[in-house]
Amino acid sequence: MDPISSETVFRGRVIKVAMKRFQGSDGEEYERDVIEHPGAVGMVAHDEEFVYLVAQPREAIGAERSLEIPAGTLDPEDGSELECAKRELAEEVGLAAEHWAQLHVIEMTPGYSDERLTLFEATGLSPAAAEPDEDERIEIVRWPLAELDRAVAEVSDAKTLIALLGLRTKLAAR
Amino acid sequence: MDPISSETVFRGRVIKVAMKRFQGSDGEEYERDVIEHPGAVGMVAHDEEFVYLVAQPREAIGAERSLEIPAGTLDPEDGSELECAKRELAEEVGLAAEHWAQLHVIEMTPGYSDERLTLFEATGLSPAAAEPDEDERIEIVRWPLAELDRAVAEVSDAKTLIALLGLRTKLAAR
Repeated sequence: MDPISSETVFRGRVIKVAMKRFQGSDGEEYERDVIEHPGAVGMVAHDEEFVYLVAQPREAIGAERSLEIPAGTLDPEDGSELECAKRELAEEVGLAAEHWAQLHVIEMTPGYSDERLTLFEATGLSPAAAEPDEDERIEIVRWPLAELDRAVAEVSDAKTLIALLGLRTKLAAR
Repeated sequence: MDPISSETVFRGRVIKVAMKRFQGSDGEEYERDVIEHPGAVGMVAHDEEFVYLVAQPREAIGAERSLEIPAGTLDPEDGSELECAKRELAEEVGLAAEHWAQLHVIEMTPGYSDERLTLFEATGLSPAAAEPDEDERIEIVRWPLAELDRAVAEVSDAKTLIALLGLRTKLAAR
């Protein structure tokens, strides 16, 4: 499944697009446009009462306010997905977590993009050492665990749906 | 949240990339690269015993075999998402469904793409009038409902995780 050639045809701030050529098992060559993404992390940060979400504008879908789990794109300086997740949890919602568990490694849109998002559960929450980033565009939303069904109905973001559906199953099992 | 300008900077077979300019509430202008996608559908097609999945190569992530729900991209000829879903269910797994229910409208990666996927549940299954498309790259996988936990652990595709986590909750409730 390795390409026989790859050419960058668009280079943006976060994503690139590569035109890749592959050879099928029948010997025929074919092309695919592939979005190249640095990778991402997201986290289900919760205590016994609340799951911590963020609401923010999303220009790409024309939304003034999209309700999502805290998440972020891997930086070259991040040593690992977990390190990135710790940084994002502090920056976006001002929290640190004692316990981290990896839940899923998710291919977001494998038909045309290589974006891989690592989803963590973060528990044992406490205020982070530093204040969250000043970003008036991001609103922190403490969502009651008792109202997860309503969140699942309201949310449209894919990674957040996976996070909340999984959390609902986990809570139902105890 | 409407852009003040939009310029197509890449035009691929399925996706385009637009560079869009926006004006923030503080009056400052800023740019975003936005993937423009025609939209998609996916379906949780199941009877009392099996959920119908497909396994196929996914060049973008270098996978020889990605296990996913049947899904497809909206064609200009599709009159609606539901019509597209009926076509894809017949083409990919050779099935027709008596009952269709819309489960979620999902923003796949709202940080940089406008792809919106409508997820349906398809039940009351029967063989489609026409044979499924001959595509030796796509393998139909009947997955036992009794082993949904194993599917959730094995699957990495985002839309499929949403579909199977939701199905597991529904089946647990009866």
